[in-house]
Amino acid sequence: MTMNLTKLFEQHALEVFEIYNDSLIKQSMLYSFFAPGKRVRPLLMLKLISDYGLDPFIGLDGALALEMIHTYSLVHDDLPSMDNDSLRRGLPTNHVKFGEANAMLGGDALLTGAFEVLSRCSLNAENRVKCIQILSSRSGANGMVLGQYQDLSLINENSDFQALSAMYSLKTGELLSAALEMGAIIANQNEHIFALREIGLSLGLAFQIQDDLLEVTLTDEAIGKSTASDRDNHKVTAIRLLGQRKAEELIHSLFDSVTRKISELNLDGTELLDYIQELLKRQK
Amino acid sequence: MTMNLTKLFEQHALEVFEIYNDSLIKQSMLYSFFAPGKRVRPLLMLKLISDYGLDPFIGLDGALALEMIHTYSLVHDDLPSMDNDSLRRGLPTNHVKFGEANAMLGGDALLTGAFEVLSRCSLNAENRVKCIQILSSRSGANGMVLGQYQDLSLINENSDFQALSAMYSLKTGELLSAALEMGAIIANQNEHIFALREIGLSLGLAFQIQDDLLEVTLTDEAIGKSTASDRDNHKVTAIRLLGQRKAEELIHSLFDSVTRKISELNLDGTELLDYIQELLKRQK
Repeated sequence: MTMNLTKLFEQHALEVFEIYNDSLIKQSMLYSFFAPGKRVRPLLMLKLISDYGLDPFIGLDGALALEMIHTYSLVHDDLPSMDNDSLRRGLPTNHVKFGEANAMLGGDALLTGAFEVLSRCSLNAENRVKCIQILSSRSGANGMVLGQYQDLSLINENSDFQALSAMYSLKTGELLSAALEMGAIIANQNEHIFALREIGLSLGLAFQIQDDLLEVTLTDEAIGKSTASDRDNHKVTAIRLLGQRKAEELIHSLFDSVTRKISELNLDGTELLDYIQELLKRQK
Repeated sequence: MTMNLTKLFEQHALEVFEIYNDSLIKQSMLYSFFAPGKRVRPLLMLKLISDYGLDPFIGLDGALALEMIHTYSLVHDDLPSMDNDSLRRGLPTNHVKFGEANAMLGGDALLTGAFEVLSRCSLNAENRVKCIQILSSRSGANGMVLGQYQDLSLINENSDFQALSAMYSLKTGELLSAALEMGAIIANQNEHIFALREIGLSLGLAFQIQDDLLEVTLTDEAIGKSTASDRDNHKVTAIRLLGQRKAEELIHSLFDSVTRKISELNLDGTELLDYIQELLKRQK
């Protein structure tokens, strides 16, 4: 099911990108969009819609907009003046491949395009507007962008777990929340939005702590071959602040609360829950 | 009238920016947004709405969204990996003031915020969606972003005037076109959109050639004090490709065609036309 949905999503994305004229900017957009990714945000939304007993097809444009926002954020965050990463998922980062200017512009075009896709999709105008409201507010100066700022500038060796978890919620939770909130809007289940937002924020925190845990594991496995940058070595993580056992406990308690909240929604299906379970078991 | 509209617009902008929590990102957004500017795009839109016999108040959110897009484009274009400018209108550019990462993020937040403002404004949902369609398509990978790419990467000493004017239309004309098209949408005059788009593209070309002319004048006046960068000295301009006299003639012929097209719209007022005339007489 996940495979089929991913295929359907990527096929749809490819068709929608046809609205753009050929240019190096389009190549820059496509390069990062189609770099191998888990498509977590699209799948969370499409599986929720499916759990409502509806055809996930109606959410494809919303899912595309979410992934365009996620992709632009990766492209910009990788830039030398931000995280300065040269590899992402085994491929050269966008600016290594296309140069800094075209990475920046490709990111700007993906960000702009997300709202173009939503504004042109087949939902009724009211729901298009609601999706754009959610996506813009979750990803902007009160949401994801603020999280990236906090990650770069506010989190330092003196940060406590409260500051770290606030940053994690902004940087990752807000867009996961948008995925679920938009799913509810598209399925005309507005009464679920508040609960789904809480679920999204908890998931964001859980996934980020899980990333911290996986990094510890990977570092242990790579004994004698340190590729971590100085910044990575001094990075404040949930493991450093809580210890590994407490961090693992927190993930489980977040997952329990997410499970309980989803069960309270009385959905027809369990695709969303199964998928979240699968994500929390991931080893990379 | 222009002064009053500008004041009204800036007051409105200040109120809307209250939706953002205090942060360095918000400061970065405000710094560039409220740097002294002519507010050409907002004023074109508001004056068109006024010419339709309507209260320009109804266009304030649309005008704000336009100016947020324009501002983000300046912030990103000034970055070291793009035009590498350290001064804009007598003030340090955003990245000089806030650092590259915060300039990038402030720009991203302005871009995202433009669509948030439109999605939340008081227009009916249909018109909000139409405005978002226009603004996103004119400013994205087929519009303004493509123009900035062409300016940085495609225009070189071998470029002809056709390539230069195509870049000018994309880089400046598309967003001026959006200003007028959105004005027509807000005033429910959809039948004017096509003509207004042509007017906007002609204006973009005329203003850019006018900039080229003003640069020549300013350079002549500043004898013995060359501050122009190497890139500026080798810049392809309409003056270099056409000569000064032909460039001036082209501006006049573009202005004549704009005047004729506006008169064919049978507007109630002449605020738009008077304002365009004023802009084409500007000396800096």
